[in-house]
Amino acid sequence: MKITISGSGLYLPPQVESSEEIASLVGKSADWIHEKSGVFERRVSKIDVDKMGAIAGLEALDGSSPPDLIINASGVPKQTIPDTSTFYQKEMGFEGIPSFSIHCTCLSFITAFHTASSLINSNAYNRILIISADRGTRGRNFNEPESASLLGDAAAAILLEKTPKNINSELIYYTMSTWPSGSMLTEVRGGGTNKHPQDSNTTIEDNLFSMDGPAIYKIARKQVHRTLLKALKNTGIKKDSIDWVIPHQASGKAVDAYISIGGFEKKKVIKTVSKFGNCVAASVPMSLSFAIKDHRIKRGDIVLLIGTGAGLSAACCLIKY
Amino acid sequence: MKITISGSGLYLPPQVESSEEIASLVGKSADWIHEKSGVFERRVSKIDVDKMGAIAGLEALDGSSPPDLIINASGVPKQTIPDTSTFYQKEMGFEGIPSFSIHCTCLSFITAFHTASSLINSNAYNRILIISADRGTRGRNFNEPESASLLGDAAAAILLEKTPKNINSELIYYTMSTWPSGSMLTEVRGGGTNKHPQDSNTTIEDNLFSMDGPAIYKIARKQVHRTLLKALKNTGIKKDSIDWVIPHQASGKAVDAYISIGGFEKKKVIKTVSKFGNCVAASVPMSLSFAIKDHRIKRGDIVLLIGTGAGLSAACCLIKY
Repeated sequence: MKITISGSGLYLPPQVESSEEIASLVGKSADWIHEKSGVFERRVSKIDVDKMGAIAGLEALDGSSPPDLIINASGVPKQTIPDTSTFYQKEMGFEGIPSFSIHCTCLSFITAFHTASSLINSNAYNRILIISADRGTRGRNFNEPESASLLGDAAAAILLEKTPKNINSELIYYTMSTWPSGSMLTEVRGGGTNKHPQDSNTTIEDNLFSMDGPAIYKIARKQVHRTLLKALKNTGIKKDSIDWVIPHQASGKAVDAYISIGGFEKKKVIKTVSKFGNCVAASVPMSLSFAIKDHRIKRGDIVLLIGTGAGLSAACCLIKY
Repeated sequence: MKITISGSGLYLPPQVESSEEIASLVGKSADWIHEKSGVFERRVSKIDVDKMGAIAGLEALDGSSPPDLIINASGVPKQTIPDTSTFYQKEMGFEGIPSFSIHCTCLSFITAFHTASSLINSNAYNRILIISADRGTRGRNFNEPESASLLGDAAAAILLEKTPKNINSELIYYTMSTWPSGSMLTEVRGGGTNKHPQDSNTTIEDNLFSMDGPAIYKIARKQVHRTLLKALKNTGIKKDSIDWVIPHQASGKAVDAYISIGGFEKKKVIKTVSKFGNCVAASVPMSLSFAIKDHRIKRGDIVLLIGTGAGLSAACCLIKY
């Protein structure tokens, strides 16, 4: 599908929180946090996801005309109703632009990227702004040291449009699979009809992030590797031809596995988790935006977006930038 | 886009609740409820949205092979993480099928229908199961008599696939607009990062459905009419050529406006709100499923799916069944 990334934007909250600072909150040492999560520091946002996403969105637009569709691709919404995409649009000062969300937790951006490409390919839209804004620190359960030390806040946006004639950009391949046998491994049980705040048996923990890190890592590592092999087989692209690997920043160990198990050169794997934590759905577009902005990724480069999400799902997207 | 509805399914909870029964809860008479909301009875589900949606989904599949994508198109999720689509898949007994949500409150189904058509048109998927399951009665605020008397529970599913050679079905047209100036008119402020249950200033009301009915009706009536005129103009289809109008069942008055203001014959406008209430995103696929199952809608008929959603958004989809 002939699509081009024509803009990218970021919002990195100014407040930095080191692992030393949260060590006492989670009852572990900073060294334990570094070792378990691979996170040395993360950002904590004082503004909500709508404002975070709008800043990233406007940066991606860079003063150009408004997009003809806004897709929210985040892990957690601002509120149940209306959709977060509406609030982005409000904060960006627009009116009348169709807006909706695509949700599959940490894979929301990769799935939205593919869906937006399909919508452009079908001539339904010309310019689509995808925004991922997550404020995972709002949902930290400090009684779960590993997951609480992983999460960080960030927003990122990507502007996608039809490939102009002088550029050769495209979405080469996309695949996704979901295995509900892993649905209990990563949860926020509240926020919907399951554990409603008005139910007397709903606890504060039900509204916080909970994960079984070791169990997920074991399944995720296997399924991501299969997803990668399937992508290489179906496209005929050799591993060495991939210029950049942009994984979901699940943890330091999860990112490093693309080198140790995936067999990619270290310099090709973009890692942001040490400095920003796991920013849920914003991790992939944030890492992509960094590498676009500092000109590591160049036109014509083959870029692999890949990761896992609660569900459990695995997905990847191969693009020619 | 050459797509065909090849299956439909419903889950209507067995428990019927009459407006007489809730009259004392909302502090109004049954006559007041009938007059204001147009709802005489609604269903109240004792099972959660995942089980409701799975029953509708399996009925739509009717014993055929599993779909290659499951889209959840509901107004409110089962829980924040993982995505509701994962839980549908789990309840249907499948494993490995990609699953995600499309969300824009009451318009989630219409938008998912268009997006799924685009994905099929791009050859990304062949058979997509769209499920809408909403349990609005869980979020009723009995201090708001109008909105509390509107909501009902239901699930519906539609199976969409590539049009076979011997059928002439297609998606003719789709349009959507979102005006965030109306974002405060219909809200559930809780369920996300905005009004988190752990915040001391978050109230139970923040987690319940709240709407300014008269204000929405005034804007929605105007915007839906514009959306309709735009669809007729852009497709060249005459109003009389539309065989069936399937509106979002916002209220009795909102559905009747398609006759009184929209100018459609009463027999063409499918109305389910009197017996089932406003079932949020499930209203449109439920009404569509009823009319498919009782053979009112026939192959070749022109069907208009249309409505508004919190945001405020308006959308419509013209299909040849």
